[in-house]
Amino acid sequence: MSKFLNTRFSGVAEYVPGEQPQDKVYIKLNTNESPFPPSKAVCEAIDAAAVEGLRLYPDPDCKALTKALADRYDVDTDMVFITNGSDDILNFSFMGFCDNGAVFPDITYGFYEVYANLYGVPYETKPLNEQFAINPADYYNAGKTVVIANPNAQTGVALPLSAVEEMVKQNPDNLVVVDEAYVDFGAESAVPLTKKYDNLLVVMTFSKSRSMAGARLGFAIGCKSLIADFNRLKYSTNPYNINRLTQLAGTAALAEDDYYMDNCKEIIRVREWTREELDKRGFAVTDSKSNFLLAAHPAIEGKALYQYLKDNGVLVRYLGMPRIKEYNRITIGTKEQMQKMLVCIDAALEGVTK
Amino acid sequence: MSKFLNTRFSGVAEYVPGEQPQDKVYIKLNTNESPFPPSKAVCEAIDAAAVEGLRLYPDPDCKALTKALADRYDVDTDMVFITNGSDDILNFSFMGFCDNGAVFPDITYGFYEVYANLYGVPYETKPLNEQFAINPADYYNAGKTVVIANPNAQTGVALPLSAVEEMVKQNPDNLVVVDEAYVDFGAESAVPLTKKYDNLLVVMTFSKSRSMAGARLGFAIGCKSLIADFNRLKYSTNPYNINRLTQLAGTAALAEDDYYMDNCKEIIRVREWTREELDKRGFAVTDSKSNFLLAAHPAIEGKALYQYLKDNGVLVRYLGMPRIKEYNRITIGTKEQMQKMLVCIDAALEGVTK
Repeated sequence: MSKFLNTRFSGVAEYVPGEQPQDKVYIKLNTNESPFPPSKAVCEAIDAAAVEGLRLYPDPDCKALTKALADRYDVDTDMVFITNGSDDILNFSFMGFCDNGAVFPDITYGFYEVYANLYGVPYETKPLNEQFAINPADYYNAGKTVVIANPNAQTGVALPLSAVEEMVKQNPDNLVVVDEAYVDFGAESAVPLTKKYDNLLVVMTFSKSRSMAGARLGFAIGCKSLIADFNRLKYSTNPYNINRLTQLAGTAALAEDDYYMDNCKEIIRVREWTREELDKRGFAVTDSKSNFLLAAHPAIEGKALYQYLKDNGVLVRYLGMPRIKEYNRITIGTKEQMQKMLVCIDAALEGVTK
Repeated sequence: MSKFLNTRFSGVAEYVPGEQPQDKVYIKLNTNESPFPPSKAVCEAIDAAAVEGLRLYPDPDCKALTKALADRYDVDTDMVFITNGSDDILNFSFMGFCDNGAVFPDITYGFYEVYANLYGVPYETKPLNEQFAINPADYYNAGKTVVIANPNAQTGVALPLSAVEEMVKQNPDNLVVVDEAYVDFGAESAVPLTKKYDNLLVVMTFSKSRSMAGARLGFAIGCKSLIADFNRLKYSTNPYNINRLTQLAGTAALAEDDYYMDNCKEIIRVREWTREELDKRGFAVTDSKSNFLLAAHPAIEGKALYQYLKDNGVLVRYLGMPRIKEYNRITIGTKEQMQKMLVCIDAALEGVTK
């Protein structure tokens, strides 16, 4: 540490992104990316004229993209906030809206804790139940900003919309942030509730269901006054935060949203097939409604299975978090990729049961 | 304001970006963009494969781009920090390195004050002298983080490297941030000093001299411990902050840096020619070493001239800041664009002197 960093940041532990080893080509199932490429319209939008246009600043208001998102989600344009990946929104949520502290599940997206520590936000965690589900009542009258992911990160388990609504209703004086990064893979979005409740922020991303993790595009939907507050923070930190090509790509993607929603259906099919195959082999698998499965096998340690798969060219995510130490998080790829992974898993299991 | 925003942000006044009117096509000389397109290598780098690659997360370490910048500026890779536009670096500077407060000139980039207010950093401003130059001695033993732009924003006036070095030397216990957004247009960069002093951070951008305002790419060079601190803040807020296409574009641009440095020479030539033409017409013009001129005419109010030019299809920046209320900031475009602007100016002057 230099002698110039504010002392309160000296103990901050940063977020550790999933590994991106370059030593060989892996079947990459470790960071919940889509196995499908961006749609044709996106490829066409990033043309020579778009690259020439890079000499000019992007539109800080992202007007075209905001309009496309508002149309897609059937809300007013001033209910939409766009950022450089959804991490940016979560960052602002902890920076700007947690004077009273925060509460989130014990197993969830690891960044919530990083943000809380960074901004000195006092926080509490509520344990998931034995099926790794959130107990909504744990968050009623929280007296703090409530942050949940639905489906939840790491586990993929989702709450029904009625349960989310009850959490929002039971927190009229607290902001409820619902991180819906994985919602398109089978959960119900809380976006319609944003017209009814002023204390709900729904956070989404183009990184998972819309095959654009590399473009960095996140957005949030909430009531006007809340979105105005988020814009105040954006215009006080980095107004031109979305580059021109990402704005074009995002707008083009929404024009072909059926393509992406069809991809999600295929991922759901492959997920359910993979789950059955893992079941057959004796794995414990969470009831995931996302584009990954969290799975553990009684006969092989989670870390050992991760290492075996990695050595054999399949990269999954070993999280090593309390309560899920024996689990691996496996992104759903194409069926062919999952078949190859299962072949590797069979070999690993043969090794330990021989 | 919603009832959820932290009360300390309630009074924050955000930064106001330069206007981007869409009502007609303007000769756009208001936001210091380059009139030249990105180089051929950049156009080639953003190809179909690059767009397909958007399904994957970008490299959070920006390894290829970091290496290219380190080579270009003859420093080690761990002395380079890359962000989503240089505003991001300035944001981190005020967020993370101003426990003791900050000091900057009275006329400079307006965002410094926004950041100071956002993070509750006590700050002091030092007046530029009558020629709108920074007096280096004003910043000796500052007891605060020193933030200057060199050449300075708004005025374009530059300090010689010896003066910058003396400021760094006279602040061994204070961080000195030198914002070199405009350095390629005729000033001397302080980058070589980063090997000698541990309290210097040099901030640069691809937005001006490298024709990539739309790609959002900024970087900073400083000693290793300082850069490690900035990385700690990045990895605690938004690790994947640079999208894949911008990383490719930046790396490609550096491979053709001569093209950009030649463009800078052309802009300097056009700037000097424009300055002479404005001189002839009786304008007061600052001694700018950047890609803009700050100019005022005794016979016409600054705001009136701005409006006249806008009505006639030429957009310049009227800043309306104290001490420069009668000035307009004019970005240097192509010679043809400047000629058209001068025709408009002549018409405006004819109107007021008739």
